[in-house]
Amino acid sequence: MAIDLSHPAEVRELAERTRAFIREQVLPVEDQHDGNITAAGGEKLRVELQAAARDAGVFAPHAPVEYGGHGLGMSDRAPVFEEAGYSLFGPTALNIAAPDEGNVHMLAHIADPEQKQRFLEPLARGEVRSAFAMTEPAPGAGSDPSALTTRAVCAEGGWRISGHKWFITGADGAGFFIIMARTSGEPGERGGATMFLAPADSPGLRVGRHIDTTDKSMIGGHCEVFFEDLLVPESAVLGEVDRGFDYAQVRLGPARMTHVMRWLGAARRGHDVAVTHVAQRRGFGSRLGDLGMVQQMIADNEIDIAATRALLTRACWELDRGEPASNATSIAKTYAAEAIFRIVDRSTQMCGGLGVAADLPLARLAREVRPFRIYDGPSEVHRWAIAKRAVSAAKRAQRDAE
Amino acid sequence: MAIDLSHPAEVRELAERTRAFIREQVLPVEDQHDGNITAAGGEKLRVELQAAARDAGVFAPHAPVEYGGHGLGMSDRAPVFEEAGYSLFGPTALNIAAPDEGNVHMLAHIADPEQKQRFLEPLARGEVRSAFAMTEPAPGAGSDPSALTTRAVCAEGGWRISGHKWFITGADGAGFFIIMARTSGEPGERGGATMFLAPADSPGLRVGRHIDTTDKSMIGGHCEVFFEDLLVPESAVLGEVDRGFDYAQVRLGPARMTHVMRWLGAARRGHDVAVTHVAQRRGFGSRLGDLGMVQQMIADNEIDIAATRALLTRACWELDRGEPASNATSIAKTYAAEAIFRIVDRSTQMCGGLGVAADLPLARLAREVRPFRIYDGPSEVHRWAIAKRAVSAAKRAQRDAE
Amino acid sequence: MAIDLSHPAEVRELAERTRAFIREQVLPVEDQHDGNITAAGGEKLRVELQAAARDAGVFAPHAPVEYGGHGLGMSDRAPVFEEAGYSLFGPTALNIAAPDEGNVHMLAHIADPEQKQRFLEPLARGEVRSAFAMTEPAPGAGSDPSALTTRAVCAEGGWRISGHKWFITGADGAGFFIIMARTSGEPGERGGATMFLAPADSPGLRVGRHIDTTDKSMIGGHCEVFFEDLLVPESAVLGEVDRGFDYAQVRLGPARMTHVMRWLGAARRGHDVAVTHVAQRRGFGSRLGDLGMVQQMIADNEIDIAATRALLTRACWELDRGEPASNATSIAKTYAAEAIFRIVDRSTQMCGGLGVAADLPLARLAREVRPFRIYDGPSEVHRWAIAKRAVSAAKRAQRDAE
Amino acid sequence: MAIDLSHPAEVRELAERTRAFIREQVLPVEDQHDGNITAAGGEKLRVELQAAARDAGVFAPHAPVEYGGHGLGMSDRAPVFEEAGYSLFGPTALNIAAPDEGNVHMLAHIADPEQKQRFLEPLARGEVRSAFAMTEPAPGAGSDPSALTTRAVCAEGGWRISGHKWFITGADGAGFFIIMARTSGEPGERGGATMFLAPADSPGLRVGRHIDTTDKSMIGGHCEVFFEDLLVPESAVLGEVDRGFDYAQVRLGPARMTHVMRWLGAARRGHDVAVTHVAQRRGFGSRLGDLGMVQQMIADNEIDIAATRALLTRACWELDRGEPASNATSIAKTYAAEAIFRIVDRSTQMCGGLGVAADLPLARLAREVRPFRIYDGPSEVHRWAIAKRAVSAAKRAQRDAE
Repeated sequence: MAIDLSHPAEVRELAERTRAFIREQVLPVEDQHDGNITAAGGEKLRVELQAAARDAGVFAPHAPVEYGGHGLGMSDRAPVFEEAGYSLFGPTALNIAAPDEGNVHMLAHIADPEQKQRFLEPLARGEVRSAFAMTEPAPGAGSDPSALTTRAVCAEGGWRISGHKWFITGADGAGFFIIMARTSGEPGERGGATMFLAPADSPGLRVGRHIDTTDKSMIGGHCEVFFEDLLVPESAVLGEVDRGFDYAQVRLGPARMTHVMRWLGAARRGHDVAVTHVAQRRGFGSRLGDLGMVQQMIADNEIDIAATRALLTRACWELDRGEPASNATSIAKTYAAEAIFRIVDRSTQMCGGLGVAADLPLARLAREVRPFRIYDGPSEVHRWAIAKRAVSAAKRAQRDAE
Repeated sequence: MAIDLSHPAEVRELAERTRAFIREQVLPVEDQHDGNITAAGGEKLRVELQAAARDAGVFAPHAPVEYGGHGLGMSDRAPVFEEAGYSLFGPTALNIAAPDEGNVHMLAHIADPEQKQRFLEPLARGEVRSAFAMTEPAPGAGSDPSALTTRAVCAEGGWRISGHKWFITGADGAGFFIIMARTSGEPGERGGATMFLAPADSPGLRVGRHIDTTDKSMIGGHCEVFFEDLLVPESAVLGEVDRGFDYAQVRLGPARMTHVMRWLGAARRGHDVAVTHVAQRRGFGSRLGDLGMVQQMIADNEIDIAATRALLTRACWELDRGEPASNATSIAKTYAAEAIFRIVDRSTQMCGGLGVAADLPLARLAREVRPFRIYDGPSEVHRWAIAKRAVSAAKRAQRDAE
Repeated sequence: MAIDLSHPAEVRELAERTRAFIREQVLPVEDQHDGNITAAGGEKLRVELQAAARDAGVFAPHAPVEYGGHGLGMSDRAPVFEEAGYSLFGPTALNIAAPDEGNVHMLAHIADPEQKQRFLEPLARGEVRSAFAMTEPAPGAGSDPSALTTRAVCAEGGWRISGHKWFITGADGAGFFIIMARTSGEPGERGGATMFLAPADSPGLRVGRHIDTTDKSMIGGHCEVFFEDLLVPESAVLGEVDRGFDYAQVRLGPARMTHVMRWLGAARRGHDVAVTHVAQRRGFGSRLGDLGMVQQMIADNEIDIAATRALLTRACWELDRGEPASNATSIAKTYAAEAIFRIVDRSTQMCGGLGVAADLPLARLAREVRPFRIYDGPSEVHRWAIAKRAVSAAKRAQRDAE
Repeated sequence: MAIDLSHPAEVRELAERTRAFIREQVLPVEDQHDGNITAAGGEKLRVELQAAARDAGVFAPHAPVEYGGHGLGMSDRAPVFEEAGYSLFGPTALNIAAPDEGNVHMLAHIADPEQKQRFLEPLARGEVRSAFAMTEPAPGAGSDPSALTTRAVCAEGGWRISGHKWFITGADGAGFFIIMARTSGEPGERGGATMFLAPADSPGLRVGRHIDTTDKSMIGGHCEVFFEDLLVPESAVLGEVDRGFDYAQVRLGPARMTHVMRWLGAARRGHDVAVTHVAQRRGFGSRLGDLGMVQQMIADNEIDIAATRALLTRACWELDRGEPASNATSIAKTYAAEAIFRIVDRSTQMCGGLGVAADLPLARLAREVRPFRIYDGPSEVHRWAIAKRAVSAAKRAQRDAE
């Protein structure tokens, strides 16, 4: 046993194939659509891109093998997802976009055989999309999940769910929803949540407006969703009643890391565009790429890319060992979200006026990566959690020493 | 004689009136248009907003009194322009948007009486808009103006101008252009440029596509402009032949500072939106605005606002004294562009998911202020100029000491 | 009335004289002592340096004219104190070092005629030094003054004071102490403090060890001080009983700003040393000062110097108008302390190995300026106060709007 | 084959033993000496500490087994060296301080059997110390090694070396020197250097003054060294003539990384001291460690520690695979040097006044870690190298695409 940072040969090959597929078949389509996937046109495009990914042998790297996937663990997903993220449309093409990718992960862990057949299989195969209905407008569940207000109460034949969600990614056009609702306790208590599965056409489930966010590449948008006396059967309960917050953890850690993988690919693209630009362009009697202040931006990007990857490697390894890895994923997510933002921002700066024009993809990338410092837990919330653990450990150490 | 930082009473009153006008009459219109002014619909809107500004007694604070303006110097413009910038449409309403505001400033300094009557007066009164045609695609004049390639050659009855410009703000719908063209020397030489005045309908002057930049609030957009054997008379020469780069300096210093004033207003709006948000919203058992990490963002915004204003005060005072103020304006511009970006970015972060949604104006503000770190000289070019002066001064001091 | 940033001619001349005096007479002495003033050798040195300052006509720029000073207000102190701060020994030479300078300021405002004659006059004339005994070890008064635990109780013929202070600057060798003690209320309450004057040789007043801090240039060090049943007469009360916290504010705002002035001078010296170094030295086929990454450090230093000065100008102007200026001084102090640290740090970096060696004064400057981010209120405490004001203002604005 | 980040059990045990040894036997000694090892008292102390380390079974983790070491590769050194670095005296105790550790590494790779016996063996066993004489005062070899001016010329029976070195770590008291001298070419050319071995008592080898640097924990100091017609035999040539720069690379990559390991341990100690402080101390009605701005500093430290370790892991793995790893070591060194500085600086800030006083070890740590941003290649030089590689790669990619 010794430190080893190399991926198996088949993973390296899959990453290489993904790289070629993205460059040859996906980037041109993204440019043509200026990085926007709308709910309507998006569905058609999604089917086409996924067919191409299947043909290229790169479809569903994360999904269980029995459902047509490659069955990769977290560590091995990293290089493949990063290559997919190089295009904003890449994750959709490989069926590894949020929230479907995280939902596949969670359903594979928690769903019962019938639920797997009915929901997981078509999702893994790209036949439907899904949504994860968790976040609510204030004063409900936002950065602080314990504020959950959506309620499910026992009813004849199952449960009745009432509540208002928003920022529900992919809701418009999703085939089914995973719904987080409070089955006991009061908002503010860290327990009492349950997850439910509901087809999109269930009476009482209504998708509202698209929230007009700065990012535009998520198929199905970020929507408001209303549950108005939505009746679901007993069999809709995912896992056990009142364990929803525990299951959310199963989803959250890995989902954070796959977000990092994808956005790191996007950041690398921005960096590549900028370095290519300054390697050609001249000014002030020099190649731009040979000017010290430009070199500093390039080097800082390289450092940020390397550090993001290194922290990701650590967190994925912990997850693959079955550890909760809460600290490692919080650290990697926080660093990555800020680093990715910086990388794209420096790349913009290196390209001058072109950096803020649609002639290059940098403005598009900038608008896509900014929310990552907020989505999946704002940096401030992760820092709070990291610090709390450190202070608790220091108190324990002191008590032990006394 | 002693340090005094107070503005005359009439300036303070004008700033107050502007503040009220913007809040009551302009912000609602901006929100309704989501911060976008298009060239076409924009013209109608501009006329309406400017009429309202005239009624409110806040129109053209910078323009000479004989043309209906308030005749304010640079120092006194600061508080008024900052209030106007609080709305993205405010500068247009007051007729102090780029590039018209800078063109008024320059024409008042350089134009001859006939040119003033024909071009300056209608511009100051808001009857036409204008454009300043300087920047060119690579390898032409960009961050480094000496790379100027557009040429004007002597011709029967005047000059013939040929060249290709881009990022020409306000070009679509402008009534006339101030054109920077090389009348002697070669690209790379720091001299030999001349400024010309040309009505927009001159044969050989063609406005091309709008460059699709991240900012959307500039009326007339940022366009490509082509001069194809454009013939202008002798009387079109602004000031003297071959002194264009000198005149550009007359325009650049003040124009940088009025940009700072306006964008500072925009940043302050973002900050106000965020502080109002965290003053109401609760989470983690506390008012958000009482959490330490949020307090840190608020305080850093306050510091950035104060420092921007303080550096602006210094630079404007130097300009009002008739100094070239190159160093002071470079320092103020560089600090301000980065501070304004940070302020809006922190404000976004404080508002969480809403910060990246159109429900609040922060995403809009973010997309508007980002280019200011590039427009009007990228931060890197200003830093280079600042450092060169410091190193030269050190060498001189050493020689003197020897 | 209009913005004016120029100092009166006599102030500019005093600043110039100070500049020459520091360079010619003080810097050589500082270098010789490697920036260390010990309590013992320091007293002799202080007397010599102050005699030289008197001869040069630059002694006591801040002190009332009737006591031999120049009587400058806060705004006019700025350029003079900055020149004095260029040498770590400069403030001692001019008799404007902490805490004497702040004590002169406060006594001039609060002391009664007899107290002025007995304490202020010899202090202003440089015949004695003084100390301000406020801060206490945990859990007493530190960043949070309301935690004050030192007590003064009524006694036959005056007050009996008991308590333990530390980080008392200049205590070793001081002629008298201004003591902050609680005369009513309990630790944690924001009131109930009184200031007392006590000669250093009062029985029950004991100066303990020098705390071995990273900064070494303060004459009399930072010491522990013990009050063991120290008896002071009624006439020792400075101002009124129970108003000590109010008086501390009178001292604190200006004292923060004069700290900024002095340390800004020190930072400018570091910058000058570095720019002179890179203007001469060559490497990588270029003058170091022409390399982009070095230019960036130089420019950032210039920006930090300019912004510090500009924020200082604002705060001093408010203070001179008689405003409490709490927000302006908190902003200026916080920005300055961090900027000064950055300036010295970048200057160190520019000088490479020499930057961390005693061959240049940079390591010395670095060790002196670091504590300023902590002394006089840590940056975090100032940020907290700034944010609290902003949030309160937002709440008020909202209430008014409703 | 799959990603694995776990160390072999025996390495984990060695790290644990080292941790206990440092805490129990070395930290108390460091505190007693206030972190200073002088050349004189240092030798006696070194012998004692190394004897204790041998008894604890933690001596020479890096040295070849045949010389009494543990024979660890780079990856496995990381956790052990980090534990050793937790005390400033730890590396000396384990015989892994610079420059001896790097010299052992290099001699093991390049020395011939006789040289190994004579120089490597006693060095590995801790019987002598050594120095690596490379850097020279301007205009000689500094950040840019190709500027090497020290010359070695063929002479009867060997080579005659003349030159002036400085910042030679450990020179005072070293048993022998590895000398870098130019055997062909001119200063500025990237070739023509040769390494020589010379006992410290060789005639013509003279150790000059200690350079008074901010760091004080290196035994033997940083000295000036003079070669005045130093005659060495043919057998003194290390490796081959004219290949000195190549060999320097063999030493430099690993030496950079072991520096990172050691300083990371020091930074972690600073962090631990600060977290322990804020976990106990109260202020502003709260435990300091529960205040948001303090939590932010703690979290940022945790992130910096994790990222440094993760980048180190990557670089060490590449080195263990026999790759030159120039980019990975430059990235890890640059990030680490700046992160370590930030960690200690934030830790200082968290402790307030105590952070800058000798009552806690933070001021000591701050003065030790600052030079690491300069030693072993300033951050600017590493960034320049990183950027050059990125721009070259972009140019190659473009050529390939054409």
